[in-house]
Amino acid sequence: MAYRWLVAAVPVVGIIVLIAGAGRAADTELRTQALSLFRPLVIDPSSASDALASRRVGLGKLLYFEPRVSADGTVSCARCHQPALYGTDALPRSIGAGQRLHPRHAPTVLNAAIQFVQHWRGDRNSVEDQAMQALIAPPSYGNLNYESAIAKIRAIPAYTSLFAQAFPGPADPITPEHWGQAIGAYVRTLVTPAPFDRFLAGDDAAVSTSAQKGLRAFMQIGCAGCHNGPGIGGTMYQKFGLREDYWTATASRTIDKGRFDVTKDPADMYVFKVPMLRNVAVTAPYFHDGGVATLPEAVRVMARVQLGRKLTDAELEDLVAFLESLTGRLPEDFTTSPILPASAQAVVPRP
Amino acid sequence: MAYRWLVAAVPVVGIIVLIAGAGRAADTELRTQALSLFRPLVIDPSSASDALASRRVGLGKLLYFEPRVSADGTVSCARCHQPALYGTDALPRSIGAGQRLHPRHAPTVLNAAIQFVQHWRGDRNSVEDQAMQALIAPPSYGNLNYESAIAKIRAIPAYTSLFAQAFPGPADPITPEHWGQAIGAYVRTLVTPAPFDRFLAGDDAAVSTSAQKGLRAFMQIGCAGCHNGPGIGGTMYQKFGLREDYWTATASRTIDKGRFDVTKDPADMYVFKVPMLRNVAVTAPYFHDGGVATLPEAVRVMARVQLGRKLTDAELEDLVAFLESLTGRLPEDFTTSPILPASAQAVVPRP
Repeated sequence: MAYRWLVAAVPVVGIIVLIAGAGRAADTELRTQALSLFRPLVIDPSSASDALASRRVGLGKLLYFEPRVSADGTVSCARCHQPALYGTDALPRSIGAGQRLHPRHAPTVLNAAIQFVQHWRGDRNSVEDQAMQALIAPPSYGNLNYESAIAKIRAIPAYTSLFAQAFPGPADPITPEHWGQAIGAYVRTLVTPAPFDRFLAGDDAAVSTSAQKGLRAFMQIGCAGCHNGPGIGGTMYQKFGLREDYWTATASRTIDKGRFDVTKDPADMYVFKVPMLRNVAVTAPYFHDGGVATLPEAVRVMARVQLGRKLTDAELEDLVAFLESLTGRLPEDFTTSPILPASAQAVVPRP
Repeated sequence: MAYRWLVAAVPVVGIIVLIAGAGRAADTELRTQALSLFRPLVIDPSSASDALASRRVGLGKLLYFEPRVSADGTVSCARCHQPALYGTDALPRSIGAGQRLHPRHAPTVLNAAIQFVQHWRGDRNSVEDQAMQALIAPPSYGNLNYESAIAKIRAIPAYTSLFAQAFPGPADPITPEHWGQAIGAYVRTLVTPAPFDRFLAGDDAAVSTSAQKGLRAFMQIGCAGCHNGPGIGGTMYQKFGLREDYWTATASRTIDKGRFDVTKDPADMYVFKVPMLRNVAVTAPYFHDGGVATLPEAVRVMARVQLGRKLTDAELEDLVAFLESLTGRLPEDFTTSPILPASAQAVVPRP
């Protein structure tokens, strides 16, 4: 429960040396190239012994599943990032408090913490920042302000001591910042090592031959130029539609100007954070507006609008096989529901 | 996983004989009286070996957590009956597809199957019937008709074979009836034996002295006249407000005529199904409109409007202690999330 998964701090070159002796020459070359672009997800055992971190993760898990803090009582992190749907809601665009439609598609929460920024336009610094601001975002929790959100947390008696235990010191530990930090601590544990990580670590049999061919193509035709790092994405911004306007291929109903609307810098027109591809095969639909329903179609669109390339059926099949090797195992602490504290004390107050 | 929990078929008199030797005389008398009014929840091991039943339960669990079949893609059984909230949504009245407000409060799904009818007004025959009709109920899944609901199930490729395995025989097993039967099979496993059951089975120490006093009061002052059977309720209809109009005590905003609106029989005016009290201490708010926030207040209201009685603080405390002894352990198959099938095949169709 208290394990924290972190991106490997092991120098990449060390891993390469370690596994250089394994596998056939072709596999080794492929792996060496892959390790120069990606990173395996590994467990960091050092935080398992930290009682305070454990309490924060435990509180964060409760808050993640807690709908009573939202404006209409129906929105928790788990509404748009459901365990049963690999940390998504399977909708093109999420629906928040008061049936308000979110402007963009909700990506999976799994591995989200390892990205350099959060949200499609990078306007959230971290998962902690995202969780905190969600409290007052109209299409999310929809609270009018932080005060009303905090009042809803306080109304559930057990949270007073749970926050105090997770954030010892301040007289009043129930704050928006601590809400964000607790949820962030939990979300940072939601990491999903996949067959691809086992392949990177030296196990040739972890992924199919088709997936290995797909990995090679992914690096050769240019996908990995943007989709790289431990998340196979989530490391940079990029214009969506380098070779032709994205909406010509996605049939998007509205044209989203992306990061331009945040920075007003013309260089940011149609620029989005490059999404991670971990678990992409099980987290349809695709793109910032969820406008494409299937993974093969999404791959075709990307090859066309980013690389000006029409994929052969064989290339497409191999690329999809590679992307399927990024589907990881869900953490047990994600698929087991917490039991939330009661809304009110059942104990009768003594006169 | 495949265990089915059922109401004890063991003759009550047999249990009484079995445990008559245990405990002090006072406990034995209390237990004997309690066993004449209630029933322990026990496991029925006979169905664990039934592969077909297991497949139905397994499919039903997927469907229970499946939001993609609802009109707006946000409603599953688990939205209003969340594991983290003891099978409720903690709202006075649930909010369904398209933000439509349900006319009545959603009770817990736990142990719901053992009731003689479903819904506050008894207008659903069984949990299977409830699950089926929810597909087209406007404040629930909100589908226009069964055809559009079934089309949404069919759009998720894996369900075709899962329904065929759970309902072998018919050429097209994806039907509203099978949807209901699968979910019903799963819901019938969601039973929560509690400290009170251990007390009934002969363990004097399973509940506190206060809870035992509360149990005695519960039977003596008349609560058990309606709240009886294995669910401590769910066995009959009764008028809400026998001694005075219920809304004078609950401050209900609108007056719900209850079963009268179903039957048009004047004898059914303000008549509702007597709700089960299992897990009542952790499933606030209370009554058909969720109009009362805390359990002590709900108990006070019931004593007043049903029994014309003003409880002493000591009586109230003991009654609440008894009701807290009805809080059971959540089944593991409820608190572990399933992983739902992907929205679309990732496999590239061969030309």
